[in-house]
Amino acid sequence: MINITNRISKLRREMDQRQFNAVLISSVPNIIYLTGFSHFSKDEREAFLFIAMDKQYILTDGRYTEAVKNNVKDFELIEISSKRTFEKALKNLAKKHNIKRVGFEHHDITVAEHKKLSSCFNDLNLPREISKKFFRGHFSVDKLRTIKSPAEVSAIEKACKLGDKTFKYILNKIKLGVSEKELAFEIEFFIKNHGADISFSPIVAFGKNSAIPHHQTSNQQLATSNQFILLDFGVKLNNYCSDMTRTVFFGKATDKQRKMYQTVLSAQKRAIDYLKSLIVNHKSIAAKEIDKVARDYIVSKNYKTIPHSVGHGIGLEVHEPPRLSPKSKDILKPGMVFTIEPGIYIPGFGGVRIEDVVVLEKTGLRLLTYSPKQIIELKPFSS
Amino acid sequence: MINITNRISKLRREMDQRQFNAVLISSVPNIIYLTGFSHFSKDEREAFLFIAMDKQYILTDGRYTEAVKNNVKDFELIEISSKRTFEKALKNLAKKHNIKRVGFEHHDITVAEHKKLSSCFNDLNLPREISKKFFRGHFSVDKLRTIKSPAEVSAIEKACKLGDKTFKYILNKIKLGVSEKELAFEIEFFIKNHGADISFSPIVAFGKNSAIPHHQTSNQQLATSNQFILLDFGVKLNNYCSDMTRTVFFGKATDKQRKMYQTVLSAQKRAIDYLKSLIVNHKSIAAKEIDKVARDYIVSKNYKTIPHSVGHGIGLEVHEPPRLSPKSKDILKPGMVFTIEPGIYIPGFGGVRIEDVVVLEKTGLRLLTYSPKQIIELKPFSS
Repeated sequence: MINITNRISKLRREMDQRQFNAVLISSVPNIIYLTGFSHFSKDEREAFLFIAMDKQYILTDGRYTEAVKNNVKDFELIEISSKRTFEKALKNLAKKHNIKRVGFEHHDITVAEHKKLSSCFNDLNLPREISKKFFRGHFSVDKLRTIKSPAEVSAIEKACKLGDKTFKYILNKIKLGVSEKELAFEIEFFIKNHGADISFSPIVAFGKNSAIPHHQTSNQQLATSNQFILLDFGVKLNNYCSDMTRTVFFGKATDKQRKMYQTVLSAQKRAIDYLKSLIVNHKSIAAKEIDKVARDYIVSKNYKTIPHSVGHGIGLEVHEPPRLSPKSKDILKPGMVFTIEPGIYIPGFGGVRIEDVVVLEKTGLRLLTYSPKQIIELKPFSS
Repeated sequence: MINITNRISKLRREMDQRQFNAVLISSVPNIIYLTGFSHFSKDEREAFLFIAMDKQYILTDGRYTEAVKNNVKDFELIEISSKRTFEKALKNLAKKHNIKRVGFEHHDITVAEHKKLSSCFNDLNLPREISKKFFRGHFSVDKLRTIKSPAEVSAIEKACKLGDKTFKYILNKIKLGVSEKELAFEIEFFIKNHGADISFSPIVAFGKNSAIPHHQTSNQQLATSNQFILLDFGVKLNNYCSDMTRTVFFGKATDKQRKMYQTVLSAQKRAIDYLKSLIVNHKSIAAKEIDKVARDYIVSKNYKTIPHSVGHGIGLEVHEPPRLSPKSKDILKPGMVFTIEPGIYIPGFGGVRIEDVVVLEKTGLRLLTYSPKQIIELKPFSS
């Protein structure tokens, strides 16, 4: 499914433009993007890719070499051990390929790692002018990743479909006495039972808890009616993520709740319609403009501004560029997949958020989340 | 349960010794250690602690302020927004407290973050001599964390006990036709049903898959007898982790398998006995010596050396200092909690690993994992 050669050629074009003759790739999503291999942990440094102009390497230790041999065909494997450390191996590669400048991921390499690697590259005894710039420059794969291939869009779409299925399933589990944690647990197990993973810990918030945008799912039980129930969850299927939020009501929504809901829904619709109007007219779309449309509408209805971005890119990571926020400099382009998720939060009362994943296409905008958005009022009955 | 004041005083003593008049704490486990607050995500930067000699602050955004107000009493909250960014807020704190040197976590702050924060601190217009050293020095909380309080040991013990219970439960689920993923799922389900979380994705490896120390749990089914079944999993309960590995046999173990098993078990026993002998004689214990005892024994029986460390510290993180590896410089001291996990891996054939968590006490060594270690041969019958 993944066209590795194509991705690496694109990366080399950028290396060439930016005058790097090698780059060091360290972040796990970028390693997955360039190799298709997804076994490495995000919690510890277990692998690097070293990509020169004519050859590419994957460096990892004995725990992974068997799996890498079987699955990663386009990279030469270098096995790391207590004798052949990452630093030594990288120094040797720099020497072998006569490297003058290595780009690396500034947002992923820590200060401690940079220090260690720099001091090992200093051993190369390069002329001062080269050495000064040798291991300084930032190289980003994230930008390449923002434009999704049709296969990637289809992978995200599959994850979104399982998300929709999960939402339908979970509605039947909302009963008097159920706790937030129990519902979160049901969401997770439904997803895992379908051979997928969660893309983040599900957020389930009842009543006034829904006023906290990142509420920590608690043991609170569903006790009374006229309650907000905010459900925010995502699927990870074949490495690609989905993300969706729906807010439903346990019992009848009050007028105040209903007004909040309709305002959020209209804010989302306005952002979507504006996006559609720009794309069909082939206009350049600044991400911050889309944020502004939804945000301004909510403020115009006398609610406080949204305390988070209106949207974010999604793919191998649940949050990735572009960002739809007031200060974003990102430009939205065909092939980008992102969320649109306005919200209104009233502390001590409750909150509403509605979130869909959309793909921007040359001919328009397509929603990848299909779950209904008309107001849902669940009949309260005992469990 | 957590004595925050005590932890912060210890930290300030170290700040004083190392001539920092403030430190910036960024890693999530260290934030949990110093505040007890565990809601922040590890995937994105959502909070910092800024600890000066006379006052301490927690910086986070609107998604968390409600929860922080309710749960974090010892820190002054500074709310971050698109107007009051982390950089601006930190610069103001540095100015307010007349800071001359800020320590930070080199292993956690990325090069990109360091650049951004450095340039904001440059705005302080400090004299060149101060500015040069202002935001350079490494400060580590991890070392403080290696010595566990009795309450922490007891928290880890509780996690280990649920691990033992999980192992007992899962043995009954091992049946002809079950897949690795199904067992991993059952492990996770059991742990979560008991109100805990997993400390990492369970590793379940059948047959020759067990030769891969970090096997990615697959759809492979248990098809024939005389199989290795390697189970490596951990519990996270009240923020504290457990970690255990057992290798059992589906059907009778062959002589070759049995010999591997007994060798690993003896290697572990030798490492434990050696540790005990040193501690009761009040001798200083180099972590690498313990690694060596287990490693050398396995090599002496004509197996390849262990392709991983013999052990690692455990606590708020499933892997933390000390490290029991050939190159470790760590000294083992009373109050430390760590794993001992030798293994033998024969590619294409299979592997055995046995892992327990132990706590080093003044009077000896205490195992926190109780699951049996005599060879277990499960009777194969259809599911």
